[in-house]
Amino acid sequence: MSQTLEPTAQTDATGQSDPTATAEGWFGQFERALAARDIGAATELFATESYWRDLISFTWNLKTVEGRGGVADLLTSTLEATSPSGFELTEPADEADGVVTAWFRFETAVGRGRGLLRLVDEDGPRAFTLLTTLYELKGHEEPRNEHRPKGAEHGATKDRRSWLEKQQEEIDSFGSTTQPYVLVVGGGQGGIALGARLRQLGVPSLVIDKHPRPGDQWRSRYKSLALHDPVWYDHLPYLKFPENWPVFTPKDKIGDWLEGYTKIMEVPYWSSTTATSASYSPDTGAWTVEVEKEGQPITLRPTQLVLATGMSGKPNVPQYPGMEAFRGDQHHSSAHPGPDAYAGRKCVVIGSNNSAFDICGALWEKGADVTMVQRSSTHIVRSASLMEYGLGDLYSERAVKAGVTTEKADMIFASLPYRIMHRFQIPAYEKMAQVDKDFYDRLASAGFDHDWGDDGSGLFMKYLRRGSGYYIDVGSADLVANGDVKLAHGHVDHLTEDSVVLEDGTRLPADLVVYATGYGSMNGWAADLIDQETADRLGKVWGLGSDTTKDPGPWEGEQRNMWKPTNVEHLWMHGGNLHQSRHYSLYLALQLKARFEGLDTPVYALQEVHHTG
Amino acid sequence: MSQTLEPTAQTDATGQSDPTATAEGWFGQFERALAARDIGAATELFATESYWRDLISFTWNLKTVEGRGGVADLLTSTLEATSPSGFELTEPADEADGVVTAWFRFETAVGRGRGLLRLVDEDGPRAFTLLTTLYELKGHEEPRNEHRPKGAEHGATKDRRSWLEKQQEEIDSFGSTTQPYVLVVGGGQGGIALGARLRQLGVPSLVIDKHPRPGDQWRSRYKSLALHDPVWYDHLPYLKFPENWPVFTPKDKIGDWLEGYTKIMEVPYWSSTTATSASYSPDTGAWTVEVEKEGQPITLRPTQLVLATGMSGKPNVPQYPGMEAFRGDQHHSSAHPGPDAYAGRKCVVIGSNNSAFDICGALWEKGADVTMVQRSSTHIVRSASLMEYGLGDLYSERAVKAGVTTEKADMIFASLPYRIMHRFQIPAYEKMAQVDKDFYDRLASAGFDHDWGDDGSGLFMKYLRRGSGYYIDVGSADLVANGDVKLAHGHVDHLTEDSVVLEDGTRLPADLVVYATGYGSMNGWAADLIDQETADRLGKVWGLGSDTTKDPGPWEGEQRNMWKPTNVEHLWMHGGNLHQSRHYSLYLALQLKARFEGLDTPVYALQEVHHTG
Repeated sequence: MSQTLEPTAQTDATGQSDPTATAEGWFGQFERALAARDIGAATELFATESYWRDLISFTWNLKTVEGRGGVADLLTSTLEATSPSGFELTEPADEADGVVTAWFRFETAVGRGRGLLRLVDEDGPRAFTLLTTLYELKGHEEPRNEHRPKGAEHGATKDRRSWLEKQQEEIDSFGSTTQPYVLVVGGGQGGIALGARLRQLGVPSLVIDKHPRPGDQWRSRYKSLALHDPVWYDHLPYLKFPENWPVFTPKDKIGDWLEGYTKIMEVPYWSSTTATSASYSPDTGAWTVEVEKEGQPITLRPTQLVLATGMSGKPNVPQYPGMEAFRGDQHHSSAHPGPDAYAGRKCVVIGSNNSAFDICGALWEKGADVTMVQRSSTHIVRSASLMEYGLGDLYSERAVKAGVTTEKADMIFASLPYRIMHRFQIPAYEKMAQVDKDFYDRLASAGFDHDWGDDGSGLFMKYLRRGSGYYIDVGSADLVANGDVKLAHGHVDHLTEDSVVLEDGTRLPADLVVYATGYGSMNGWAADLIDQETADRLGKVWGLGSDTTKDPGPWEGEQRNMWKPTNVEHLWMHGGNLHQSRHYSLYLALQLKARFEGLDTPVYALQEVHHTG
Repeated sequence: MSQTLEPTAQTDATGQSDPTATAEGWFGQFERALAARDIGAATELFATESYWRDLISFTWNLKTVEGRGGVADLLTSTLEATSPSGFELTEPADEADGVVTAWFRFETAVGRGRGLLRLVDEDGPRAFTLLTTLYELKGHEEPRNEHRPKGAEHGATKDRRSWLEKQQEEIDSFGSTTQPYVLVVGGGQGGIALGARLRQLGVPSLVIDKHPRPGDQWRSRYKSLALHDPVWYDHLPYLKFPENWPVFTPKDKIGDWLEGYTKIMEVPYWSSTTATSASYSPDTGAWTVEVEKEGQPITLRPTQLVLATGMSGKPNVPQYPGMEAFRGDQHHSSAHPGPDAYAGRKCVVIGSNNSAFDICGALWEKGADVTMVQRSSTHIVRSASLMEYGLGDLYSERAVKAGVTTEKADMIFASLPYRIMHRFQIPAYEKMAQVDKDFYDRLASAGFDHDWGDDGSGLFMKYLRRGSGYYIDVGSADLVANGDVKLAHGHVDHLTEDSVVLEDGTRLPADLVVYATGYGSMNGWAADLIDQETADRLGKVWGLGSDTTKDPGPWEGEQRNMWKPTNVEHLWMHGGNLHQSRHYSLYLALQLKARFEGLDTPVYALQEVHHTG
């Protein structure tokens, strides 16, 4: 490694720049500064505009700090306890457009980490982005490969119990002879992925879900539903989809996968179980969670409570005058059974996001007379374009062939600071606007109110900021564009016994009304389960503080309350799409494991609460 | 490639031998000889002692030919139709102990193949072993990776059916509006693996099984059962066990895996379905198979019938005088419920192979008074020693780390000709005898009648030759060695109302008698389902013709009737352990696919039938 004091770009014998030597030189200086606890020297290694994102390795938090001031602040609080060392490249560094990119590993006092560094030239190579993540705790490594369990116990032991008996005893013991350390409420992909990781980490945990079987969260939804994200984006931890798995998984098939996965990973899981109330007692250091398991009341006393009921866990059903008088069928999109009963019937779908389009399309396919009511502008991207320009570099067969495994893609994605992510997103959506110009023109001609996000940054930023306001088009947008699905605009004023009446007086005759009106907040779910005071203390869940529609400022830098310590001790929020469930469940599981093992977990810069609800 | 006419060992610039150049030179000559249809020249490239094993790529058969005469015969029959080309190394060749080993690919007129070559020096490099295998048919490649199905169908289509509806319609249609091209009777690991491959190949197929759920073949057996083979040996096609899967899978856990796998792979599978009769009509070109599905009779008319009921599909229950008078419990090992009801009771287990030991051990652990009745000598190896010396180079974490994937291990294993396999096996068992000498001495002191196979070649050869006669010790052998489980010798003469009486007059008081007496032949199962004439025409199933105990000569070179054309047209046998189910299901599936597509499949050297039963 370089012995110079100032960071220096390295060249090889032929005078070509040598990104590996440059990155190794940077890490050499960084490590020496950290070892000497010389925060000033370490800070100097960052560029004026720079971002350090840490996922629990220094901060026991998910935290992005900005600029040298942020770096200094982070190190001042965390350096002594973290005691990092052993920074090493794990493969040769790359250089493109003047940016050196380097994958690395490192250690802390308690664990092992990996990360991704980007260097720019600013009087020598300085960090533009640094991602540091913890992946395992020393002495608590997961049993894999040569450390995998033996399974059948060899030898002869009196009164041996079989694997099945032990599984059954464990799952039956919760709430009677034992208590889970972690209770995860909600057993969709989020709860299941977290449950699998906690199982591997040996943390006594229980996942509960109201549905009869794992996967019913998907099975129970409208018939035409399929994942809008492609297979490479959707893997769960430990067990990847096989090479013949379809690109866009039909909902019943992902249901089957989740059910099989739960068994394969031995996730302790109670189906048909509803949590009815929860309260935390500082005296006992435990929650009291009342649940009904197949109708029987059981009291659980976990130390940590994770809400994984999801962004789509609490249907948002609007209240309109006249709903009680309406004689046809009416239900929220989450309760829509599919189109079979509605051939030839008049159907009105309130809303114009993903569910609304999917349901309109399926109703039209069955021969219904369908009207979509657009209440506000919606962002639409064509699925193929999103795959090509939005995800293709990270999550695609092309990416896999280029060596970008799902694990690497997750790290690359995590390494892009939220503060500047829109900068990288805008060009992709400009490209889509260009290649699909005809499509957008036709939508406009049909009167559809389309937007690209407040700053033109498109779908993924909308998802991160507000979790709504878009449709990934898999065919139904054309039905609106060509008039097969009729379009109405405005808000609902009231219902009559046979129609929906909009505020402008438009009357839409209806045999069926579907409220594709989205979902209530995760904070609201916490209020229902615990109480409003606790929910207010928790604060708003999701969003970045981007000061765009439905994501008020100030800037917070990370998604509010997700996968990290909240202002309600012992309460955690988990969720998101399959990508987030996979990636962030690791950090949440390690935070819970550390607490279970009694490790010191000083949280740097616990988020402030700026918004309730 | 070398242009010399005689095969020549190649050296690099420094005079070191260059195995890659040597192998490339050999393939250059081989390909030129084959292209010129010069069978004499091709034959000259083989050593005096040589073996060419082909898995359906030249022969549409599983066939090993021996020596230059065998090679000439094979090529004379197959060369013109096969029209092989494009022989190419897929990685640099290795050299060890004077043997050059080379992985290669090639093509035939109809498909793509891969193989493994070993060259020895006999006036230049000549083939000692050649393995050629077909892995796909041109124009019928499996949809994987960039060719995977799209899943959700984008666009809008009137009267679209969902994935679930299509699955259900397909599975319900068999026997009414459609017929499977292939009917697989038996849905254990063999039937499921074959069903998965046929599904991927687009061959309309149905797997039926008598149990209520996939995996019940394992779940329904005695409680202490676990796989005796380690995880690396047990993967199924397409979806590997995850890295945290236990080494020795408990039986209920492998049951869950098989059930999940069946769903994930969309294997068309009828549970609770028994085949009651089958007959083939040359006039219609189809079988008539009567089945009972959940008690309802259905007639299926498949073109191809696969029996995958397994080597353990037909319990062999002995008939002894007095059985009807015995007042305690008595059952075959396959029906043994486990030890729970037998604490403190007197238990006699007839037999001394795997099931007998497992059941004796579990009964002892529960506190039963257990006697094992040994009727003939048994071969025992300790599990850890078998892993280390028998399987470790191919199927272990060590092997995986050395680059020996399961796929490579399967090919290496397949490349060792059965004729000389015992030569490679004997040293491993000599090693085990040495390291476990104390163990074997203690067994001998306890009076246990132990053998190492007729020629000392141990467990795997016993498995291939007769499928019985051994125990992989996971702890119960010590119970016999130290007298915790009592040992009796000889054959049963009769039962009384409360005891088992041996031929030498020994009387064993018994509350429970377990007949761990093995399983009937697969041929017997064919006789039951079809008729004796057909079973006799089929001939003995399993075994090599090694002229050792229970495997009469003459030498046949491949396992009788398994995974290849039989003398009963349209009837196929499939089975074996997880390794064989995985590996050989590929060749069986391709044979069936080729026939389904109407390809010409001339079978070289159809096996002769030397034995019935």
